[in-house]
Formats: sequence, C-alpha cells, structure tokens
Amino acid sequence: MSFDSAAEYRSHLAREALLPRGFHYFVTSLTFVPAERPDAGEASMNLAVIESEPGAVTVGVTTGNRFCGAPVQLARERLPAAGVRAVVVNNKVANVATLTGLDDARTVAAALARERRVPEEETLSVSTGVIGWRLPTERMVAAVRGISRSERGPVDVAEAIMTTDRYPKVAWERRHGVTCLGVAKGAGMIEPNLATMLGFIMCDAQVERDRLDRVFRRVVDRTFNTISVDGDQSTSDMVLCTSNGASESEVSEEELEALLLPVCRTLAQEIVRNGEGTTHVIEVRVRGVEDRLLSQRVGRHVANSPLVKTAVFGNDPNVGRILAAVGDALDTWDTECAVDGAALTVTIAGRRVYHEGSFRLDGAVERELAEYLRSAAMDPARSGYPQEAPNVPIVLSFGELGEETVVFGSDLSYEYVRENADYRT
Amino acid sequence: MSFDSAAEYRSHLAREALLPRGFHYFVTSLTFVPAERPDAGEASMNLAVIESEPGAVTVGVTTGNRFCGAPVQLARERLPAAGVRAVVVNNKVANVATLTGLDDARTVAAALARERRVPEEETLSVSTGVIGWRLPTERMVAAVRGISRSERGPVDVAEAIMTTDRYPKVAWERRHGVTCLGVAKGAGMIEPNLATMLGFIMCDAQVERDRLDRVFRRVVDRTFNTISVDGDQSTSDMVLCTSNGASESEVSEEELEALLLPVCRTLAQEIVRNGEGTTHVIEVRVRGVEDRLLSQRVGRHVANSPLVKTAVFGNDPNVGRILAAVGDALDTWDTECAVDGAALTVTIAGRRVYHEGSFRLDGAVERELAEYLRSAAMDPARSGYPQEAPNVPIVLSFGELGEETVVFGSDLSYEYVRENADYRT
Repeated sequence: MSFDSAAEYRSHLAREALLPRGFHYFVTSLTFVPAERPDAGEASMNLAVIESEPGAVTVGVTTGNRFCGAPVQLARERLPAAGVRAVVVNNKVANVATLTGLDDARTVAAALARERRVPEEETLSVSTGVIGWRLPTERMVAAVRGISRSERGPVDVAEAIMTTDRYPKVAWERRHGVTCLGVAKGAGMIEPNLATMLGFIMCDAQVERDRLDRVFRRVVDRTFNTISVDGDQSTSDMVLCTSNGASESEVSEEELEALLLPVCRTLAQEIVRNGEGTTHVIEVRVRGVEDRLLSQRVGRHVANSPLVKTAVFGNDPNVGRILAAVGDALDTWDTECAVDGAALTVTIAGRRVYHEGSFRLDGAVERELAEYLRSAAMDPARSGYPQEAPNVPIVLSFGELGEETVVFGSDLSYEYVRENADYRT
Repeated sequence: MSFDSAAEYRSHLAREALLPRGFHYFVTSLTFVPAERPDAGEASMNLAVIESEPGAVTVGVTTGNRFCGAPVQLARERLPAAGVRAVVVNNKVANVATLTGLDDARTVAAALARERRVPEEETLSVSTGVIGWRLPTERMVAAVRGISRSERGPVDVAEAIMTTDRYPKVAWERRHGVTCLGVAKGAGMIEPNLATMLGFIMCDAQVERDRLDRVFRRVVDRTFNTISVDGDQSTSDMVLCTSNGASESEVSEEELEALLLPVCRTLAQEIVRNGEGTTHVIEVRVRGVEDRLLSQRVGRHVANSPLVKTAVFGNDPNVGRILAAVGDALDTWDTECAVDGAALTVTIAGRRVYHEGSFRLDGAVERELAEYLRSAAMDPARSGYPQEAPNVPIVLSFGELGEETVVFGSDLSYEYVRENADYRT
C-alpha cells in the first residue's frame, strides 16, 4: 500500500483493520512537571489501556537487559499466573532506575484494576520513555479514573504509545474465524533515553496458555528478534500476546502460528522501517552456517556495522566493508567453528559480488547496485505514514548446511545522529 | 603539547624525536590506474620502507579477522623465523580479497630484498587501503628500485602511510641507553574501504625473540587492543615490533615493557583521537568484574554503543544510555556471570551519576557535565596536528574484585557519517 498523507494512512487503518472480538481500547493524556527536571517545564504523557473480557491468557517475551525496568519486573511476576488481561501503557517516562519503580508500576496498575473492575493481579503497567525519571503516579491514577473508550480503538492505542515513531504501527490477520491484531512502537527516542520496542498482540482464539506461550516464542524469535536498529536491547523491551477465546474457535498450533507470524513480521519490519533516520532497510540473510547462534551473530554483525550502515546510507555497494564485518564476526581468536571462509559467496540485491576468495564487482555492476540503492532510499523527512521502498538484501552463503537466518537492520544517516545527539551547545 | 599548525607539529616531531640506532627510512610515491576501476582515472600511492641493520628480530600481532589480507598471511608465514628486518608499506590498496594477493605481496617484498640486499625471507610487504583491488605490482617494483632515504626519517614514514588520518603519529621513549620509536596509522578510510590500524615499533635493545614476543603481546593487549573506533577489526590490522641490538644494551623484561608501553599507549590514543569525525575520546573503565573478558566486553559495549556515542557527541551526559548498554552487555539470556548489577556505581568525569539502583543526576550536575563535555570537544575540521582535549572518563564500578579494564572509543558525529557514507547521488 502506498499513502500520500498521515490522514489517509490513519483512515485506512481505522477502516480496514480487522478487530479481534472481546477487546476494549481506551486512551487519554495528561501533563506533569518531572520532579527530576523541574526547570524543564511541563511534559505531556499519553495513556492507553488495552483490556480483554475475562478468561484471557497473556504470555510475553521481555528484554534480556540486566537493568530491566520496573514494568518488566512486574510482568515477569504476574504473567506466569495466566489471567493477565488489562494493560495500561504510558509513553514519556520509562520507569527504569528509580528507587520506587516497582511500587509506582503497582500503583498505576491498581488504578486500572479499580477503574475497570479487573482483579489487580490481572493488570500490568507498561512504560516507555526517559530512564531515571519517576512516573507521575498521582496524575496517572487521576487520568485512569473515568478514562474513555477510544473511537478508533487499536489505531488510537498505536498512536498513543509512540515516542519518536513517525507513524502508528498496526497489523492484523484473520483465518479460520479467528482474528489477530497487533500494535507496536519502537526505535523511538526521547531525551535522555533509548529506543524501546513494545508490542501488544490481541487474538480471539481459544488456546491454552502453554500452547500460546510456545507458539508466541517461536514467532517472536523469527520476527521481533530478527530486527536491530542500534544493536542495543533496551531496558524495557516487551512484547505481549493476549488470547481470549471470544471467537469460540479453537485452532491448532500451526494455525495459530500462521495467524501470529504475519502480524508480528509486519510490525517488526515497520519498526525497522520507521527507525530513527532510517533511509534503507538492510536485510541480511546467512546461509550454510550450521550453528544457529553463530549464523545470527554473523548477520547481526553485518547489519550493525557502522561502516556497512554508513555505506548503505551513501548508496555505496561496499563489498569490502561487508567482507570485513563477516570476517570480524568469525574472529579467528575466539571462534572455534567449522565455517569455511573460502566457501563464502556474497550477493547484494541478487548480484554476486564476492565468490571464491575474490571480488566480482566490476564498474557496471557497481553502478547498477548504486542505482538500486538510490531507488530503495526512503526520505526520513516524509513523516506520518510508511513509505514503499524495497529492502537492501545482502545474502551471505557459506553452503548448504543448516537453516537460513535473517536480520533486518537500518542504515546510519545524518538524521540518526541528529535525532540521537540532542546537541547541547 | 599544543600546536597551531601542521608545519609546527611536523617540525616538532622532526626536531624532538629520539631515533633508535641502526634503522633506515625510505619514502617515495607513484601513480597507477586501478585495473578494477579504469574509469576512475589515476590514483596515487605512497611507499615507505623501514629497514634495520642485520641481526634484528621482529615480532607482530595481526588481526583476528577471518578474511585477513595477503600482507597478514605473508607476515604470519615469515615472522616466526626471526630474521625479518625490512618492511615496505603502501597505502591506497589493501591487497585483500584478490586472487593474486599473496603472490603480489611476495613480488613487492622481493623487489625490496633486491634493492636493499636483504634476504627475501627477511622482508615483508604491508598494505592499507581499498579492499578488492590488486596491488599495482609493476609500478611498485619500479618505485622501490632506487628508492631514496627520507630526510625526516620516521616522520616521513608516518606521513606516507596515512590514509584519511589527519596527522602523522610518532612516539618515542629512551631509557637505560635504549631507544624505542613507533609510527602508526589508523581509523582512516578510503573508498570503498575500512579503518585499518598499522603500527611499526623500532627499538635498538638487545633482546631475544621470545622475550620480545612475550613483552610485546602484553603491551599490545594494554594499548592497541584497548581502542575501538568502529567496533570492527579490519582485514589488515597489524602491529610489528623490531629490535636490532644496535644500542648494545641488554634490558630486562620489565625495562623493555617500560620502553614499549608508553610508545604504544601514545600511538593507540592518537589513533582514537584522530578517528574519523572524532570530537570526543571516550574512556570507559570497568572495575570489579573478575572475568577479564566479560569486563572488556562491558567496556567495549558501552564505548561502541551508537546511542552512547551520539549522546557524547551532543555533549549530553546520558546516564540512561550508559546503563542500558551495560545491561545489554550483561544480557541475562546468555551471560552466566556473578556480576551484581545492583552494586553498580557509574561516574562521568568524576561525578557520581548512578548508585544503588537509582540515578544521582540532578539538574546542576547535569549542567556541569554538559559543560565538561563541551570543553572536551575537539574540532574535526582542524586538521594536520593533534588537538589538546581531555578524555571523557566513564567509570563503571561493580566492586573491588578483579583488575580494572579500559577501552578508549570515539563519539559518533555528522562528520563520521559524512566521511564514511561517500554519498553517491
């Protein structure tokens, strides 16, 4: 789909999105003066609530970052008991690295429980934003009281949870009478903070918790876990999946996977496409490495290499930098592996550029690839809706063994530096 | 030392440098048309020769990159046999990933052997520059014939081996009648290429090969191995150390280390300071992590985090991003370690900003640190000589155990993107 304006994109979402049954969406906003920065004046915060009717199960995957935020801690505490079905999400303050974080998260979740008459242990409070600031709990509790239903449901929620995202991200799928819809935010920065990925997937299938957990982890591994914008996982990354049985349809694991996979894949790709200052989405596929972790490491190393990223930004099909990044990931000092470097073939956008130990890149192919990169470039100044542009596929093939792994990354532009430098003169 | 012009800096080096006995330096240049880019016109290349009188021993540390260049392969072949004492170094072409690389390196080294009447197995050919191009061996062989001694010795060599380095890097030390002098280049890019670090250390001590090897490895681990500009080690990184006994002074291992350490430390720091677009040198010290590799991993992760790097560029003392990078390096998914995250204290430039699980950064300290960062900023446009500016010290302390590790990194500026994007419109 191609859009010409933010309004057109939002209307499209509101009109077309297929809604899972038995979910309710609420949105509001508030202002507060951060206690840590009283001189900075008023800040504004959005609150969004996603609530399922009773009988839902929720599973989740959370960050591996050792300094995880209070919302992640609360989620880890409450998710195993199955019944979680109402989540309040705020932007602006991440609720990380404060002394009162866990209490603050409980307080906000309790306000949601009271307002929506949901048992407290079935609620969560999820946050994204500035690290080191306390949540303005009094204001948030007051805002939750009497919170109103949103007109455009999940589209409003997707918009409310944005930080520096340029457009709301919503994806859906319907099969066998079951509907799945997800919203996500990511790759957004607010000072002085870092990119955080949040995803909420709603589904109306009848499914046991264990089965949902198993399928969702597989899906996350193949979608959200294949993307990388900064190479850092944040203190607050979290993706949750709630299924409430409201469709009264049972599905097999395979069917469930076929529902969740396209939704999570679309959201993950949109997070990269909407990354800070992204002008190209780099898609690195690694083939022929039996050890899956090593295969992913190679792909991530290439996708995260600042030299590869700046070259792609500059529409430069720089084979030397790709080769160097692969070689560094396969560092001979600490990698004991059976990968045969001599077997490597590299293609960029389908053109073979390295084979049997040597470059295969003459001036003509180089010009073709530079032209391809130019045509694949997005304009980071065009905001408010996704742009159509092909990925930049880089395939690293070492042979036939093992499964292919894939990593989606973003290039490194002036705009990335500008957004993240927050230059203080 | 503070300089006002490139000429003043070069005169200072030529006047003050203490020269180890028994070394000779030669420099020339040539032009060639790259076979891979006939349309790009003539390119120019510098050649530098460093030669010791007979009886020298040379040891080296080379890249761990799996796709190492032909010069690295030749060095690994010849260094173990002890006698290496003459090296020809070229810039512009890296001699990596071509089918004839090793033969080309041998051909150029053989020309040096003939010209200087040194046994072939005592010579090396070392290269930095574009990956995937063949060395213009005929032109190089012709240029080596009759190569003339350089007037300013190692200063001319340091200048000849530069790629996008902004100034030549030379360091020296004299103790107990023994002199050690080193030259280095690094963090330089030429399209379509990557940063490569080369270092050549000359010493006139009498020392056995094994002892020199042992000491040099220790020194490299504490100097060149503590720096990181892009997070990638190149296909061509190499540091060599030659000692020829011309001082007729024997030194103990401790004395030798005391000679080599300051020379290598100065060169390593200058490589970072002169990194592409560097405006701040970030100095990350990790304390209280017993596992040395993990300690280094934490330091490197912080120094290489694009979010930390852009914040420092923006004079923003961003504690949240530092914390997030530390937490990511201590990823709870794959790190089985006894590091106690709760024990972490973070200081920036001596101010405590995180302690006992919470930020300690009020508006006043934040303004002080922003002011410090501004005062520590270098101007990447001022070229040709080093600028005086303090490092940005970040100390991550987990307690008292283990040895401190340190990593020196650079910030991430618009200028870095500009230099590396080579924008093709």
